[in-house]
Amino acid sequence: MEDRQISQAVIRRLPRYYRYLGDLLDQGVERISSNDLSKRMNVTASQIRQDLNNFGGFGQQGYGYNVKYLRSEIGKILGLDEAHNIIIIGAGNLGQALANYASFERSGFFVKGIFDVNPVLDGVTIRGIKIRMMDELKSFIRENNIEIAVLTIPKTKAIEVAEVLGETDIKGIWNFAHTDLHVPENIIVENVHLSESLMRLSYKIGRSGDIQLD
Amino acid sequence: MEDRQISQAVIRRLPRYYRYLGDLLDQGVERISSNDLSKRMNVTASQIRQDLNNFGGFGQQGYGYNVKYLRSEIGKILGLDEAHNIIIIGAGNLGQALANYASFERSGFFVKGIFDVNPVLDGVTIRGIKIRMMDELKSFIRENNIEIAVLTIPKTKAIEVAEVLGETDIKGIWNFAHTDLHVPENIIVENVHLSESLMRLSYKIGRSGDIQLD
Repeated sequence: MEDRQISQAVIRRLPRYYRYLGDLLDQGVERISSNDLSKRMNVTASQIRQDLNNFGGFGQQGYGYNVKYLRSEIGKILGLDEAHNIIIIGAGNLGQALANYASFERSGFFVKGIFDVNPVLDGVTIRGIKIRMMDELKSFIRENNIEIAVLTIPKTKAIEVAEVLGETDIKGIWNFAHTDLHVPENIIVENVHLSESLMRLSYKIGRSGDIQLD
Repeated sequence: MEDRQISQAVIRRLPRYYRYLGDLLDQGVERISSNDLSKRMNVTASQIRQDLNNFGGFGQQGYGYNVKYLRSEIGKILGLDEAHNIIIIGAGNLGQALANYASFERSGFFVKGIFDVNPVLDGVTIRGIKIRMMDELKSFIRENNIEIAVLTIPKTKAIEVAEVLGETDIKGIWNFAHTDLHVPENIIVENVHLSESLMRLSYKIGRSGDIQLD
């Protein structure tokens, strides 16, 4: 599959297609035209066709898209047809919330372990998943074929832990710590900076006020 | 201030400038050149100058940027110089995690109330903030000058609640529910779709494997 030049914008939109197609399946819709899909998703039909053409199309003239097939193909592109073992580092409120979020499993992401530095939490389980101490981290990653580490720890700790992760075979870090991590380039970092998202909302609220006053 | 044409990309970057300038302040740095800032932030100096020129510049030839002043100005642009009253709707794991996240307050976002449908939680407090039932929602928003509602509820519930919010004076919704909300256009919605972020990470991990094999 030729996809070296897929833009960041397309990648950003793919999970949204996947979600809408899942909702359509739940509603019993078997096929949909790019026009109908475009109305539901509030994007142009030509953008949908362009986006999907990046991966070879999937649509048939006069028929539209087969919902189940298209969803399954996008799922493959997103790597959701394979199981991904993940660990959560930081068993605070956010780490626990993510550990309790069972729907990740439906997309193939399985939380295998939770790590923390607080000895009081050692051996406690969340949804059957054991909390372990950091000295076990490297061996656990190796022995359990862990692909993704979720960082839900304060930023100073995250920088230290990222260094340790850099010495393992981990492939990706889902980073909730409010800092940019420096890791070897074979490790992919996806940031979720919640407070920055809240600031963008605040910015837009401020601007929309301006526009109304004009 | 003329900022009608600020691009989404610039808006996306502003909170990151704000964060780096805060870190610099914590380290006692009083002024910084766009070159030094560019090295730290891993963006080009010309992008920094361009981004900040959208808002009138702030830098002085041969001096660079005054860190405290620039941070404070970006804070104003982001609306962080004013207090924002927020409520959290959904006292599950994620809602509780956000309610416990005290650092939002340092940016001016104050959680005034938490709402849920579960009567068992009625009157329970989280970090001193009382959990209330949904029948109080509209009056609470009105009487407490609530600007932002955080939705940490399942998607079907979120669609219903968004309709109710549409009848209030709320200005923004920070939406963690895995669906796109339809609200009156004077209400700004900022989505945090966590599972989509995780899918993007999975996508990138898959592609990086391809590239290494080439």
